[in-house]
Amino acid sequence: MSQLNRTRIQNVLKRMAEADVSQIIVTSPISIFYLTGEMVHPGERCLALYLNTDGAVTLVVNQLHNYIRLDGAKVVFFHDTEDPVAILAKEVKPGRLGVDKEWPARFLIHMMELRPDAPVLNGSVFVDMTRMVKDAQEQEKLRRSSAMNDRVVAKSIEAIQEGLSEVDLAEKVNEFFAAEGASVKNLCIVAYGKYCAIPHHGPSKEVFLQPGDNVLFDIGKNLDGYYSDMTRTVCYKSATDLQKKIYQIVLEANLAAIAAVKPGVRACDVDAAARQVIEKAGYGEYFTHRTGHNIGIEVHEWPDISSTNEMPLVEGMCFSIEPGIYLPDSVGVRIEDLVIVTKNGCEVLNHYPKDFMIVGK
Amino acid sequence: MSQLNRTRIQNVLKRMAEADVSQIIVTSPISIFYLTGEMVHPGERCLALYLNTDGAVTLVVNQLHNYIRLDGAKVVFFHDTEDPVAILAKEVKPGRLGVDKEWPARFLIHMMELRPDAPVLNGSVFVDMTRMVKDAQEQEKLRRSSAMNDRVVAKSIEAIQEGLSEVDLAEKVNEFFAAEGASVKNLCIVAYGKYCAIPHHGPSKEVFLQPGDNVLFDIGKNLDGYYSDMTRTVCYKSATDLQKKIYQIVLEANLAAIAAVKPGVRACDVDAAARQVIEKAGYGEYFTHRTGHNIGIEVHEWPDISSTNEMPLVEGMCFSIEPGIYLPDSVGVRIEDLVIVTKNGCEVLNHYPKDFMIVGK
Repeated sequence: MSQLNRTRIQNVLKRMAEADVSQIIVTSPISIFYLTGEMVHPGERCLALYLNTDGAVTLVVNQLHNYIRLDGAKVVFFHDTEDPVAILAKEVKPGRLGVDKEWPARFLIHMMELRPDAPVLNGSVFVDMTRMVKDAQEQEKLRRSSAMNDRVVAKSIEAIQEGLSEVDLAEKVNEFFAAEGASVKNLCIVAYGKYCAIPHHGPSKEVFLQPGDNVLFDIGKNLDGYYSDMTRTVCYKSATDLQKKIYQIVLEANLAAIAAVKPGVRACDVDAAARQVIEKAGYGEYFTHRTGHNIGIEVHEWPDISSTNEMPLVEGMCFSIEPGIYLPDSVGVRIEDLVIVTKNGCEVLNHYPKDFMIVGK
Repeated sequence: MSQLNRTRIQNVLKRMAEADVSQIIVTSPISIFYLTGEMVHPGERCLALYLNTDGAVTLVVNQLHNYIRLDGAKVVFFHDTEDPVAILAKEVKPGRLGVDKEWPARFLIHMMELRPDAPVLNGSVFVDMTRMVKDAQEQEKLRRSSAMNDRVVAKSIEAIQEGLSEVDLAEKVNEFFAAEGASVKNLCIVAYGKYCAIPHHGPSKEVFLQPGDNVLFDIGKNLDGYYSDMTRTVCYKSATDLQKKIYQIVLEANLAAIAAVKPGVRACDVDAAARQVIEKAGYGEYFTHRTGHNIGIEVHEWPDISSTNEMPLVEGMCFSIEPGIYLPDSVGVRIEDLVIVTKNGCEVLNHYPKDFMIVGK
């Protein structure tokens, strides 16, 4: 039997009450795990946790998971022949209904048909605001996960050698993570040369290391339930002036954003701190993505650190700072660290050096 | 530049016109690939293909994918700082708006706010009905994928030996698939003994083969864009009368369902054909899932072959027939084949024998 996490649920209910929303449907499996301790992989099937500020907690889950018992909550199992949304609709009370931001339209539209008296709104924010603030235990796990990542990036940079394809090197990275006890499945991003200038490039078996290439590692894994995520970009054997110049600008942007982090500063201000450095250097159009994202049980958690997010930072948030410059078919550099917001600033979780580095000389 | 698949799009528009729905938003990346030839992995970002019966085709996609050019369609790129739903809302006309069944609530609720003049309905059926009927080329790919699966299951059954964990054996299965040129990522289902009685059991490193165990392989991979999926259950070294009896019932159910397949028969009738055999034998409560699912570019495609699906089968559908009996902590057997609906019945794509089998004697 799993125990509800009462502290976290109370935190969610409090935020709901403040916003005058008395009921929400949580459907993110990770959020349900965060609140109940039960991790369900529902596949295409419905999975929903109904929360009401009156204290009602109900999990609706397919009977394939009929081993689930939740202390302090009602659990309703449904068969594949039943309509789970109709079962869930019976729990809903008249009035505004917050639903999970990821709930698929096929469920949501059906709920709107069944309960026109419960107008829907995006209700994820109540859970996400709670998940966003990491407690002491979570922070310690994030630290340990990033300490592992520091060790792995060190080994990975040492493992750079001619003749290795991007996939070969990415597989070595996975071996280093496996040796650390991390759960390893997909390959991390390893990119060479001009492929560093494609932010979402997946490692290729056909791309082999050449002297003069940048080598970009964007790596991180789940250790004991919490993710790490960092990026380092080095040069192999030699570097052009352009490579050095771009690197210094990105490093300056990374440091400027980190220096900007403290409670009360808005996420968009952190983004701006990095972006302004790159814009002033004349490369603004080549920094094509947000500056960062929150991280925890998932690699990408809400919210992002972007120019459109005006939310003030609060103590206990953990997110990435990862500015980059991507010159198409030419140079690509990204430098990424995780930080935890502290009372007066932030704690940087990654300690692997980020000075400009030429390896393999 | 990709070419729109005009035949498929016309097919979708025709179904929309018949249902008097003039506009839909397709957001499934696989469905967009099916219609446009462009495979985009949007991550958490918005991706949408707007179709109107007036002929308008518009793809809204993040500028990370700004290499995309679609012959015959408008492509609108958005930056992370822009509101993609607002951009998409500009394409929408007043009147009913079909949306993808999987579209996340955060986009759908926002669209409903922006366009209250376009009441939403679940609009996936128009695309799904089109995808459901496989053309000759798709059928040939499905045949080849299942022929591969027959060869791999043969090798996998030969590879059974004491001392191997479920994961060890599942990794061998993946090696056999890799040798066939299939794309290999996750492990297939390999289960021993009482774990065969858990339909969604993932292979374990801690479970080792014992004489007398059932060994269940539920395997399949993507070959050249199309999936295979089959299940065989054998006994290792010996078998009890109960194991033999359960096997024969499941086999009879599998054959009865296959015999029931032809155009015009309802999906629920195929489910019933299998289910009645198992119910008559007194094990109805232990057949805990639907009889099958459609398959193609995805392993699980719409619709399922279940007791609640009253849709008549049509020629060109490809789906699984996979009855099972799961006695908790005891015996579990499932036998699965893929079939294509033909003019007068069906073609079974899997040819690996399914007579009761004891291996390793």
